[in-house]
Amino acid sequence: MKSKFSVASIMLMLISFTSVAQNNILVFQSDFGLKDGAVSAMKGVAMGVSADLKLFDVTHEIPAYNIWEASYRLVQTAPYWPAGTVFVSVCDPGVGTERKSVVLLTKSGHYFVTPDNGTLTLVAEQMGIQEVREIDEVKNRRKNSNESYTFHGRDVYAFTGARLASKTITYDQVGPKLPNQIVSIPYTKPSFGNGVVKGTIPILDIQYGNVWTDIDKKLFGQLGVKVGDNIKVQVFNADKKVYEGTVKFVNTFGEVTEGNDVGYFNSLLNFSLGINMGSFSEKYNVFSGNKWSIVLSKK
Amino acid sequence: MKSKFSVASIMLMLISFTSVAQNNILVFQSDFGLKDGAVSAMKGVAMGVSADLKLFDVTHEIPAYNIWEASYRLVQTAPYWPAGTVFVSVCDPGVGTERKSVVLLTKSGHYFVTPDNGTLTLVAEQMGIQEVREIDEVKNRRKNSNESYTFHGRDVYAFTGARLASKTITYDQVGPKLPNQIVSIPYTKPSFGNGVVKGTIPILDIQYGNVWTDIDKKLFGQLGVKVGDNIKVQVFNADKKVYEGTVKFVNTFGEVTEGNDVGYFNSLLNFSLGINMGSFSEKYNVFSGNKWSIVLSKK
Amino acid sequence: MKSKFSVASIMLMLISFTSVAQNNILVFQSDFGLKDGAVSAMKGVAMGVSADLKLFDVTHEIPAYNIWEASYRLVQTAPYWPAGTVFVSVCDPGVGTERKSVVLLTKSGHYFVTPDNGTLTLVAEQMGIQEVREIDEVKNRRKNSNESYTFHGRDVYAFTGARLASKTITYDQVGPKLPNQIVSIPYTKPSFGNGVVKGTIPILDIQYGNVWTDIDKKLFGQLGVKVGDNIKVQVFNADKKVYEGTVKFVNTFGEVTEGNDVGYFNSLLNFSLGINMGSFSEKYNVFSGNKWSIVLSKK
Repeated sequence: MKSKFSVASIMLMLISFTSVAQNNILVFQSDFGLKDGAVSAMKGVAMGVSADLKLFDVTHEIPAYNIWEASYRLVQTAPYWPAGTVFVSVCDPGVGTERKSVVLLTKSGHYFVTPDNGTLTLVAEQMGIQEVREIDEVKNRRKNSNESYTFHGRDVYAFTGARLASKTITYDQVGPKLPNQIVSIPYTKPSFGNGVVKGTIPILDIQYGNVWTDIDKKLFGQLGVKVGDNIKVQVFNADKKVYEGTVKFVNTFGEVTEGNDVGYFNSLLNFSLGINMGSFSEKYNVFSGNKWSIVLSKK
Repeated sequence: MKSKFSVASIMLMLISFTSVAQNNILVFQSDFGLKDGAVSAMKGVAMGVSADLKLFDVTHEIPAYNIWEASYRLVQTAPYWPAGTVFVSVCDPGVGTERKSVVLLTKSGHYFVTPDNGTLTLVAEQMGIQEVREIDEVKNRRKNSNESYTFHGRDVYAFTGARLASKTITYDQVGPKLPNQIVSIPYTKPSFGNGVVKGTIPILDIQYGNVWTDIDKKLFGQLGVKVGDNIKVQVFNADKKVYEGTVKFVNTFGEVTEGNDVGYFNSLLNFSLGINMGSFSEKYNVFSGNKWSIVLSKK
Repeated sequence: MKSKFSVASIMLMLISFTSVAQNNILVFQSDFGLKDGAVSAMKGVAMGVSADLKLFDVTHEIPAYNIWEASYRLVQTAPYWPAGTVFVSVCDPGVGTERKSVVLLTKSGHYFVTPDNGTLTLVAEQMGIQEVREIDEVKNRRKNSNESYTFHGRDVYAFTGARLASKTITYDQVGPKLPNQIVSIPYTKPSFGNGVVKGTIPILDIQYGNVWTDIDKKLFGQLGVKVGDNIKVQVFNADKKVYEGTVKFVNTFGEVTEGNDVGYFNSLLNFSLGINMGSFSEKYNVFSGNKWSIVLSKK
């Protein structure tokens, strides 16, 4: 268990935990895009397992091979789905290589079927590891699919996820139990000291150009900033300062006039930067990734 | 009630009105895009309300904050869904500000859950207002979501829409009844006079580059143009003439050779401009919005 | 029956054939895109026919009017859906013209509702023609939709597909039986001779930039190449040589270091070209279509 009291752990407590039994809900995520037939082939395989399944998506627009973003999108959405939901995430630069195929059961009762390549970093940390099992690819593989080495999403992950979600197999039947750990992508945790909060920019709110940090409400609270106060913000790309300015801390964008910069808590209750009716990212050339950091202090 | 006998009112008469009871069908629209997890979080909340719901989409590619287009897409699609269907539309530049959160029940028996910011302009006008209720955000809000000010789509609209569609609450339980009116975006209505029909270009048929007007079949009929006749067309952006030409009025594009301009009735039975196997919009730099107008006369 | 023993026929044997009865599963494909309401209108019509239907998609991002790609995406996905599934494919440059509206039942027990304009080329060839029926548009057309000439996807295809998938009508009630043939797009078949395999590049694996050929495992086998061997590859656009090089034949990309070219069998077990963590298509300007050909020999 980690010591930091994270936003997601708060959220999990808030969401009622009804059951860990699978609930026929199967949710797909991938970096396949929607222009070809790959996602549809996965769903067809699932419907072949059980026509009672209800199929949904997180997104299929994860940038190709971007495991970090795959990890982020899972933790952004999974807590809002009922316990028992099975997620299949296929972002797999190492398809056919040594990474294990696993199913993680979190303490919140959600299942994640995926290559164990870092995709589970954030859900494991924030939703808690209840149990990890390796997929037995002899038993849990689409019949006669052994000749295809390159589409485990269809032949192993969708197939296994569908069997699990529909209770065709129990969680135990996925395969042998592994130690309670998963492959994690290293990243710098946010911190407070000397009146300053430091964090990173894990991701952008792409559609609107808002900049999301990993500084949660509790950590931000150390600054003693209230709604309506000004905050001094510095953004760095590695060692280079990209932005320095003052933003007003608001509940909603409507509290400033159009075109003004704001700081606010996003839908995951993390501190974020935006512009009322504009794109902070585009205006200031601020982007996301493990090289991007942010420093906040009270003005 | 408006006096103009619109295309949508014709369509509504044509579509059988079976019931106004909710039917477990919940249809989402937003300007969120599909690259992140926002739409998925909304659907997860809905499935948490009732796993019997059937979830669908209009589109999530409404341009950011474009309330007019949100309004148009609803009226383009809602009449084709069964009565009792509940729509959740989230295009909300004023999130967290004064606009009300409402549920409109149309005379056709469709429900629309949305901020009352103009999104309802066209469905209210063309499908008729049966009743409007304000969402009681104390009762109809995802449990313990009060700390999040910025994602009403997930915490209020998806949650309330799911409760309504699944009959967890009745329409009355949405909240207090409001007067039978909604916030409308002003726009110029099409007209006929002196042998000339004038209209606007509310939207493009993006995928193919066709130009859709708001001139319906009845109004167009005033010109006395028959299939095979030529029409003189002028298109203006504000006061500037952007296009002037002659198009053949056809039932289908196949009636002219490739590359030729045509006028035709689109799938909503509004007069439209296209090119057989080409893009009228791209070729002539004609776009859409409230500044774009069109003038037609018989050649 | 064709003489070539194709990949798809292998796949069909591998996939258990449970029944040809419709199974309430309706899968849509089109070139409409997802930015407007066209796909949603089709789904609304389907739900109006029967709320028990389960609606899915192949893709709606077929490039406008690209019948070949529509044909390819169907054969890439349909074999993975259960027998009895009904597909509605609307890519229809000739809407409103002479092409027939048909429903193909394949030997595998899948139904395809589409204009007979070439869209059925590959499913007919690889999944086999069991029966073809022309849609009787008097009986099988959305009520009172006769005035709309341009949206057969909504008014005829979605409507008929929904009625068929939900067993509202039997296959016989679709309309009169036609001869067991469909409109085919001509294309060059792959071949072997003098130690050389020749084929075409029907499509790209867009998301990753891999280049897919139509050279299946059996034909490729004639070269006597084993995993780990090198292959000489030439790619032509019409008569112009665009690429010449040597690639290693691998099971999975991880068998070469990043940035290296590989040859491999894709998820349909066709020979393909890729780069580990890169885009073969972008790097070498290799694209797809009937003018693109490829020549392979053992190095």
